[in-house]
Amino acid sequence: MKFNIALLAGDGIGPEVTDQAVKALDAIADVYDHTFKFTKAPVGAIAIDQTGNPLPDETIELCKNSDAVLFGAIGHPKYDNDPSAKIRPEQGLLKLRKSLGLFCNIRPVKAFDRLIDRSPLKKEIIQGTDISIYRELTGGIYFGDKHLSEDGQVATDGCSYSVEEISRIAHLAFKEAQNRRKKLTLVDKANVLETSRLWRKTVTEIAKEYDDVELDFLFVDNAAMQMILNPSQFDVILTENLFGDIISDEASVIGGSIGLLASASVGSTVGMFEPIHGSFPQATGKNMANPLASILSAAMMLRHLDLHKEADAIEKAVEKSLELGITTGDINPEKPFSTSKVGDFIADFL
Amino acid sequence: MKFNIALLAGDGIGPEVTDQAVKALDAIADVYDHTFKFTKAPVGAIAIDQTGNPLPDETIELCKNSDAVLFGAIGHPKYDNDPSAKIRPEQGLLKLRKSLGLFCNIRPVKAFDRLIDRSPLKKEIIQGTDISIYRELTGGIYFGDKHLSEDGQVATDGCSYSVEEISRIAHLAFKEAQNRRKKLTLVDKANVLETSRLWRKTVTEIAKEYDDVELDFLFVDNAAMQMILNPSQFDVILTENLFGDIISDEASVIGGSIGLLASASVGSTVGMFEPIHGSFPQATGKNMANPLASILSAAMMLRHLDLHKEADAIEKAVEKSLELGITTGDINPEKPFSTSKVGDFIADFL
Ligand SMILES: CC(C)[C@H](C(=O)O)[C@@H](O)C(=O)O
Ligand SMILES: CC(C)[C@H](C(=O)O)[C@@H](O)C(=O)O
Repeated sequence: MKFNIALLAGDGIGPEVTDQAVKALDAIADVYDHTFKFTKAPVGAIAIDQTGNPLPDETIELCKNSDAVLFGAIGHPKYDNDPSAKIRPEQGLLKLRKSLGLFCNIRPVKAFDRLIDRSPLKKEIIQGTDISIYRELTGGIYFGDKHLSEDGQVATDGCSYSVEEISRIAHLAFKEAQNRRKKLTLVDKANVLETSRLWRKTVTEIAKEYDDVELDFLFVDNAAMQMILNPSQFDVILTENLFGDIISDEASVIGGSIGLLASASVGSTVGMFEPIHGSFPQATGKNMANPLASILSAAMMLRHLDLHKEADAIEKAVEKSLELGITTGDINPEKPFSTSKVGDFIADFL
Repeated sequence: MKFNIALLAGDGIGPEVTDQAVKALDAIADVYDHTFKFTKAPVGAIAIDQTGNPLPDETIELCKNSDAVLFGAIGHPKYDNDPSAKIRPEQGLLKLRKSLGLFCNIRPVKAFDRLIDRSPLKKEIIQGTDISIYRELTGGIYFGDKHLSEDGQVATDGCSYSVEEISRIAHLAFKEAQNRRKKLTLVDKANVLETSRLWRKTVTEIAKEYDDVELDFLFVDNAAMQMILNPSQFDVILTENLFGDIISDEASVIGGSIGLLASASVGSTVGMFEPIHGSFPQATGKNMANPLASILSAAMMLRHLDLHKEADAIEKAVEKSLELGITTGDINPEKPFSTSKVGDFIADFL
């Protein structure tokens, strides 16, 4: 089969790590007789440098006309100390999510046995953790009205959610739970927020269509505690945009391996696949960044394109690299392999 | 000296644990020749049961006319599965904060050496942690306009902050930093929220008046990670209401001892002092809940009333109880002492 893949490598280590994902996909293409046509387009700080726009229209067009988007990372230190700069890399990412209708961000969080000792949490706590976080990605306070009074004294952000926005991601999350351990936890702040109460009501209603799934609720402050105290209690977590941002980043470090975590953003049209980690400016150009999250993003992409055998093959290759210690310095400080060496190993193994 | 203390024991284990704080304060009164006059008033679920109102006007009046408020806990399971009930215990707490102008919630988070092994985090990670969290408590999305459309399809929450609201707590946080390790971290989401950008701008401006304090910034998602990866990097954390709710609850479990954490809420008038933990319905009436957080809240109250020697004495007594293992089952599962026995020990020791 033939697939058109938009390659949005972005900033910092983005290009280095997506290069390795491309190697892996090329190897898959050879073995399983597919064609992946990669087309590059700018996004983020690099797009601002080149065009003045963190998300040029051509990039959006390319993505819309592709079968999937492989994303690297965005962000550059020169914007970090000035979050009120008029033009910022993050705007590109937010606009991309909105333009492509990527309302559902999926983040698997898993304790890899081989890396469990690297977790900041004790082994007994983290063991067996296997969570799938469903974060709403195109609504809530991220996309509400923003306002600064003329005298600069009062700022406001609006947060809003509709039953429709809640329902479409809730159905996806319930279906995921049916394919897993059949438990769904809604994280909200229904004791304070009107939007959270609408989430709770809507999700409770939808739960009736999935009576094999056990639904429970956690206030977000409690969820932030439970994620550390007892992460293995969770199966699928469903939550709104801002809470998802916080809880999924918190969850991403408990496994001890943020360099291994991938995510998928799906919705109305094409899906987008990216590592959890950022653009890691300190490592840029040094051929030392861990490419496994990007490679696992490629696996998520394959699964989304219904190429399950192929996705399994990539995941197996990643496990092999962990087993043999053919990994970068973040995981393997004693005998680090370079970014490209790890990519070569995965491609060869495939 | 003579002090009028409003005693809002509230729900669940609230009464049992505040009883022990009262014992400790009575012992302090004896030794240091003070008078504490305690006056009880209802709040929370119990106030709903008694009066239909989670915060009766008489309770507010009493608090306003007291030198300090000692608070227990609120919440009852019968409200937990119905967060959209018209009348809820939490409303009492929110209204109390607003009525008393308690805009600043202070939560110390410390790794107690004796309890470090009980932390879900590894010892190397948690060791040396000593954080003071300053959470804004009467603004933001908690108190913004809430709206549900007539057809029930769209819910909204407004979030707003003024320079004045930010400044008054920022000054308190900077002063605290000056008395500690001289580092202040502002936690926000300035890459997305207008309110966060106003926080960053205002706090940056105020920092000029405290040039011995080092100011840095963390996005809230990153803060949720750093709290687990490297909590000892933090000194004073300053943040808005909702982020403070999440981050401080997350922080509260890393020490392994939520039963030891107290908090102070201060602002324009009288201060309120309470344990971090909730009403713990499962333990209610069983004389097994840990009273140390409530007792340490009393110590925070004394410090706020400028009775530093007296506060030190209580803290020392608590340390002694930990040293001797005269503690409840949550800390000391092998040989648990009852709530009242722990209270008696503290009072006797004083
Ligand atoms: C860069 C930022 C706007 C973004 C977000 O908050 O959504 C990031 O933290 C993420 O989680 O993808
Ligand atoms: C009970 C609830 C409304 C409250 C809050 O969110 O402020 C609680 O979680 C707290 O932190 O004191």
